[in-house]
Amino acid sequence: MTHNTGVVTADIRLTGFSSRAPLADALAWIDARTAALPMERVALANALGRVLAAPIASPADWPSADCAAMDGYAVAAAETEGASDYNPVPVNAHVLIAAGLPMPDGTDAVLPFALAQPHGPALDALAPVARGAGVDRRGSLLPAGGTAAAAGTLRAQHIALLLAVGTDPVAVVRKPLVALLVAGPKSGPDLLSPMLRALVARDGGVPEAMALPAAGADLVLMAGRTGAGPDDNAALTLADAGGVLDMHGIAVRPGDSAGLGCIRGVPVLLLPGAPHACLAIYDTLAARAIRRLTGVQPCDPYACTEKLLERKAVSAVGFTDMIQVRISATHATPLGPADAGTLASAVRADGFFIVPESSEGYPAGTAVRVRVYRP
Amino acid sequence: MTHNTGVVTADIRLTGFSSRAPLADALAWIDARTAALPMERVALANALGRVLAAPIASPADWPSADCAAMDGYAVAAAETEGASDYNPVPVNAHVLIAAGLPMPDGTDAVLPFALAQPHGPALDALAPVARGAGVDRRGSLLPAGGTAAAAGTLRAQHIALLLAVGTDPVAVVRKPLVALLVAGPKSGPDLLSPMLRALVARDGGVPEAMALPAAGADLVLMAGRTGAGPDDNAALTLADAGGVLDMHGIAVRPGDSAGLGCIRGVPVLLLPGAPHACLAIYDTLAARAIRRLTGVQPCDPYACTEKLLERKAVSAVGFTDMIQVRISATHATPLGPADAGTLASAVRADGFFIVPESSEGYPAGTAVRVRVYRP
Repeated sequence: MTHNTGVVTADIRLTGFSSRAPLADALAWIDARTAALPMERVALANALGRVLAAPIASPADWPSADCAAMDGYAVAAAETEGASDYNPVPVNAHVLIAAGLPMPDGTDAVLPFALAQPHGPALDALAPVARGAGVDRRGSLLPAGGTAAAAGTLRAQHIALLLAVGTDPVAVVRKPLVALLVAGPKSGPDLLSPMLRALVARDGGVPEAMALPAAGADLVLMAGRTGAGPDDNAALTLADAGGVLDMHGIAVRPGDSAGLGCIRGVPVLLLPGAPHACLAIYDTLAARAIRRLTGVQPCDPYACTEKLLERKAVSAVGFTDMIQVRISATHATPLGPADAGTLASAVRADGFFIVPESSEGYPAGTAVRVRVYRP
Repeated sequence: MTHNTGVVTADIRLTGFSSRAPLADALAWIDARTAALPMERVALANALGRVLAAPIASPADWPSADCAAMDGYAVAAAETEGASDYNPVPVNAHVLIAAGLPMPDGTDAVLPFALAQPHGPALDALAPVARGAGVDRRGSLLPAGGTAAAAGTLRAQHIALLLAVGTDPVAVVRKPLVALLVAGPKSGPDLLSPMLRALVARDGGVPEAMALPAAGADLVLMAGRTGAGPDDNAALTLADAGGVLDMHGIAVRPGDSAGLGCIRGVPVLLLPGAPHACLAIYDTLAARAIRRLTGVQPCDPYACTEKLLERKAVSAVGFTDMIQVRISATHATPLGPADAGTLASAVRADGFFIVPESSEGYPAGTAVRVRVYRP
């Protein structure tokens, strides 16, 4: 078996992997085959969290005219010159105005209520205001041609600003359709389908159970039957449908029976059937592929935080180990070595850190970067 | 006007706020009136991100019998004693087995393929295996009565584990129904409704446009018309519907015209109509209320990261200032003082930091905790 170039043809059932690809090769393989999908237009009301395909320039000045920036009286600033508490100055031009409304002709500043003294229809200023004070000049919030939104993920404030400048709908990266092919469990209920559906949706993909060749899918996830057991036929199923495997067996724990291939030009990821290993490989490889297809940054689904190891962590040279931890304000406590992970420990853990292939592990007190499972 | 006890009755229109409540009082007011709602049962398939109301104990041992933890041959460990590459030992009891399947009677270990040498129907062991090696004992992954999931937010692995132990549906905290009452904009399109809908959904609430008294709502957000302008009638609208305001005017920038009250025992938040101020008050007060109602931790919607100020930040004593920043790997650069924020700057910003009431600001180089806007 060759792991990093060419096509995998050997049947590894009942023998096991004779070699495994380094994780770095698997990541490079994914990066070479995934990039932001073409764009589609969606209404701003449905665009939260979507990724803007290109920057949007404001088509017009905002505001479109000089507007009051605060509540008060629109006045001619020149009329307030010399005013003070001890020298109230009558203001001839004055219009009660609310923030956001256009300034009336002949006015150029807003006198706040605290600095104004009305007498019936007349008004005294109790302090001078400068020309333009309390006014949002035309285009001052966002001039025509200015960047209303940079390319990237749309937050709630983007939705509001793009509505304000009148660019609805917007062009966002199409969501990847992710085909899920989950082998029936060897015993008990199917745990992988609900877990993978949740994860794919979390990362911005649209999960759909499909059979090969999974026409129309942007990515194919085959889960289960990836190892060396007698019924581990994921690789053969892919080959029978006309697909090829480029790597099978990746030097990462848990999940070393993972594989990477293609069918009709669409990337295919083989995820191990053990739920905790499936999760680990999903987070390491599949999440990266899906997030790259959506154009979202970063492509790692978890935020990192630096913690000190509470006790030593042992790792196998030749494997990239993902070690689950509980974290406190300052420390990370490993739940066990990478090969002792279970679904129950994935639930107990707050996250995990990665020990590279070349390392035998770290002594207590080492600072490690923990990837924290999202709530 | 009294700001921190009793009921607000003064009409502040055309005069402005004579005093403002400290932000700490507003946060305490919210904390005293919001806690996790009663629970409801939902199918695990729809439970991602929901908050488990109480811990769930596993009703049964998992696995329910001793199972193979790896692919290989199920054997009696005693039969492999003394085996080595140079001394293959015949094994009488051996069954080809896949990970996850129950161990056949009379076997107590799994011999990996790499350590096994088949000869037609016969099998030699090339190394000894210990009793229990390669086996997940009954209940070893999660014993009956063990904690399958602690109270808190359900992640994808929780869904899978709870399916495995057979606890579907699960009891989660009911989602708060959040009434949105948005005053029509003074000019242009309604920016607040789409923004608030997105934010409420982000924080786990169910947004719904409703009129007062908003029967059935768990929280009421009234947006716009909160200030001292001639048409700022949010406070009067609430009073007319039988509600009361406990605070109006909070010493925070942007958003100092915010208010807090109740109608029929349900908390009401007044959010300013200027979009960037509405966002700031939503994030500071409304997100906290909604997240406390959902039971999610933390109740701050944004993750914090420590950065060094690129240049000095000026703040007004007597106001809690929220200062928008762009961030780099190490530094935070203020976009301007708190009173210069706009919707456009909320889009350009990566997040904000908070300067407490007692501070005049910080010199360049100060470490500040930046709340990073979520993608």
